Amino acid sequence: MMRTRPLKVALLGCGVVGSEVARIMTTHADDLAQRIGAPVELAGVAVRRPSKVREGIDPGLVTTDATALVKRGDLDVVVEVIGGIEPARTLITTAFEHGASVVSANKALLAQDGAALHAAAEENGKDLYYEAAVAGAIPLVRPLRESLAGDKINRVMGIVNGTTNFILDKMDSTGAGYQEALDEATALGYAEADPTADVEGFDAAAKAAILAGIAFHTRVRLDDVYREGMTEVTAADFRSAKEMGCTIKLLAICERAQDGASVTARVHPAMIPLTHPLASVRGAYNAVFVESDAAGQLMFYGPGAGGSPTASAVLGDLVAVCRNRLSGATGPGESAYAALPVSPMGEVVTRYHISLDVADKPGVLAQVATVFAEHGVSIDTVRQQGKDGEASLVVVTHRASDASLTGTVEALRKLDTVRGVASIMRVEGE
Amino acid sequence: MMRTRPLKVALLGCGVVGSEVARIMTTHADDLAQRIGAPVELAGVAVRRPSKVREGIDPGLVTTDATALVKRGDLDVVVEVIGGIEPARTLITTAFEHGASVVSANKALLAQDGAALHAAAEENGKDLYYEAAVAGAIPLVRPLRESLAGDKINRVMGIVNGTTNFILDKMDSTGAGYQEALDEATALGYAEADPTADVEGFDAAAKAAILAGIAFHTRVRLDDVYREGMTEVTAADFRSAKEMGCTIKLLAICERAQDGASVTARVHPAMIPLTHPLASVRGAYNAVFVESDAAGQLMFYGPGAGGSPTASAVLGDLVAVCRNRLSGATGPGESAYAALPVSPMGEVVTRYHISLDVADKPGVLAQVATVFAEHGVSIDTVRQQGKDGEASLVVVTHRASDASLTGTVEALRKLDTVRGVASIMRVEGE
Repeated sequence: MMRTRPLKVALLGCGVVGSEVARIMTTHADDLAQRIGAPVELAGVAVRRPSKVREGIDPGLVTTDATALVKRGDLDVVVEVIGGIEPARTLITTAFEHGASVVSANKALLAQDGAALHAAAEENGKDLYYEAAVAGAIPLVRPLRESLAGDKINRVMGIVNGTTNFILDKMDSTGAGYQEALDEATALGYAEADPTADVEGFDAAAKAAILAGIAFHTRVRLDDVYREGMTEVTAADFRSAKEMGCTIKLLAICERAQDGASVTARVHPAMIPLTHPLASVRGAYNAVFVESDAAGQLMFYGPGAGGSPTASAVLGDLVAVCRNRLSGATGPGESAYAALPVSPMGEVVTRYHISLDVADKPGVLAQVATVFAEHGVSIDTVRQQGKDGEASLVVVTHRASDASLTGTVEALRKLDTVRGVASIMRVEGE
Repeated sequence: MMRTRPLKVALLGCGVVGSEVARIMTTHADDLAQRIGAPVELAGVAVRRPSKVREGIDPGLVTTDATALVKRGDLDVVVEVIGGIEPARTLITTAFEHGASVVSANKALLAQDGAALHAAAEENGKDLYYEAAVAGAIPLVRPLRESLAGDKINRVMGIVNGTTNFILDKMDSTGAGYQEALDEATALGYAEADPTADVEGFDAAAKAAILAGIAFHTRVRLDDVYREGMTEVTAADFRSAKEMGCTIKLLAICERAQDGASVTARVHPAMIPLTHPLASVRGAYNAVFVESDAAGQLMFYGPGAGGSPTASAVLGDLVAVCRNRLSGATGPGESAYAALPVSPMGEVVTRYHISLDVADKPGVLAQVATVFAEHGVSIDTVRQQGKDGEASLVVVTHRASDASLTGTVEALRKLDTVRGVASIMRVEGE
């Protein structure tokens, strides 16, 4: 039963992702029509530079007036692939008010204003879908909010930024330092000219906020996510990791506290055992590990960025939203009923790998061990290495709260025999 | 906005999966109600042995008359976890006719009669969901038919049977033979007393039929799936695989032909490179690798069986179907519009690893090479090993059709100098 009046889709943004969405909508028009139950028609494309030639897109559809486009009133779906907060936010809200559902790939906006956007969608009885906002092509938002809707998710831990994974993988496999690996990532187009959003963990933190919100049915804002970049990871850290049978990844970790009464979300570099499935995620790939009560351990793996992969996720949402339009229903909206408190980083409990530069004389280990004990941080292993009158101590702890560890490190810095704290790295995935 | 009249759910079967579904419906009742928008109520449980004590289930709900239960007329959803063809098929059809939607975990039935069941669902305006039928807890049916609905899937290749993966992993890691590894799997409860359905690939073939159908929007019946078990895989095969930098897995492979005009589906043991993500899938875990035009390579990993994981998948479907009931819509039904022909095994193109026992005399390699050439099968590498007057030849081919390879092997068997064909193994994932 094919409806013949086409569904009208407007595209906001026609860059790497948008042009690929437009291309697939044209080349796969018959397939999309079959899968939706009605043809879809590209009704308008809002761009900043209208003079640019866009292959396969009717120039008559191109406009610089995005606001007028979303106000047309005859649109079924608006696809937002501009990115950034404004004008994307206002355009999405305006689209809802003028009768369209929205598919967005905008992680920054969703992480910052997800609740308000969901509310606007619901008020207007429209859909807001955003599979492409997290981990590119990897189906993750839908599995978390639909497939696992009958389960209780306890942890989501993943590599959700391809740029940083490329850099860390390069450091791991070649022994290169951070700057050298970053330069190669830039040269190959994996890192942007200004890599701050990636290497400082802002991009991953936005995704962590979105994932934690869905996983725990709780509003988690970008500000709630602890964030530590990976610019200070050194070749020496990778050597330490190897000695422990580990590698280093920039992880986004969303956890439910043991007692179930609160959640945490954080982004930081961490050592993980080479036997962990996330350890073997190479290059710019992404992977997300999910642990739940009934399903156990699941992993989702795939390309986390790029025009085509992101377009795949956008189009999957487009099909779902179009199907909803035809049936007069809407898909699952925001689910924040659990409203669990988001605990600060100090309450996170994990293990730590700490390298100290210490004086090479008797009694140092006893002093250091006393400081750990006084702060309630239990030591798993210590390795002592002498070098030219100096020595290094590598301490790996049992599980302890981040606050206890911070207190321990502050006290260690005050010891005369401790020359410096060379590195502190969390150990995850054990 | 919570509706107070509960949705009524009947459970057909209360074994390992069913009892876990019932348990979670009770213990997570509040969460399920929030996520659905209305409470769900267990309205009846059909079992074979009513005398068995079932903890947490009101004995007043238990009945042996499954037919009367599905005919009640007030049910919203029937969850079928009996398995097998009958009475499951008739009960599901009857449930549709009496107004209920259905969630099923029944791969054998879906693979054999999926089209008829989908038709019955559609006629009655009801949902048929079956995430649990393939790869247990791993979200796979929903990602394939919804997340990738705007993409073109070219290949689905996976480990979809935990029992055989446990056995093969054991053989790989310990050097054990098939029987020894099977005995251990049986002792640990990973293999059933009669392991035929698993080790002969029937279970994997059913899943391959379901996956191919969804991936290619084409009806693929169980009979269309080429099936070869793994009972003849030997310790020697694993040694050969190691020499090639490979391991051996029982794979379900669904492929679109290069020209896009036909598809194939098959289950057989195959060598895959140790670097392939599927190679590191250990124990009874499942993983499915998906390749599509836009998304590229995706992988889904998790527990493929067991009461809790399967219950997680069933409950995810239950939430979706209940939400659909409330909104008056139905989810995606069968999508078979592409109706591509399913080609026989002879048309499958892949690489082969062939071990021959040959006479240890000059000219044998030339004879063997000639036979390959005459059948249009190009040789990649040959390794010759002498042993006590006998010799073995290991040939790895370039890509060739299964029909050409079969012809080659038949001709090789007729050579006087070929004493026997020790093993033929396909090589995948390169």
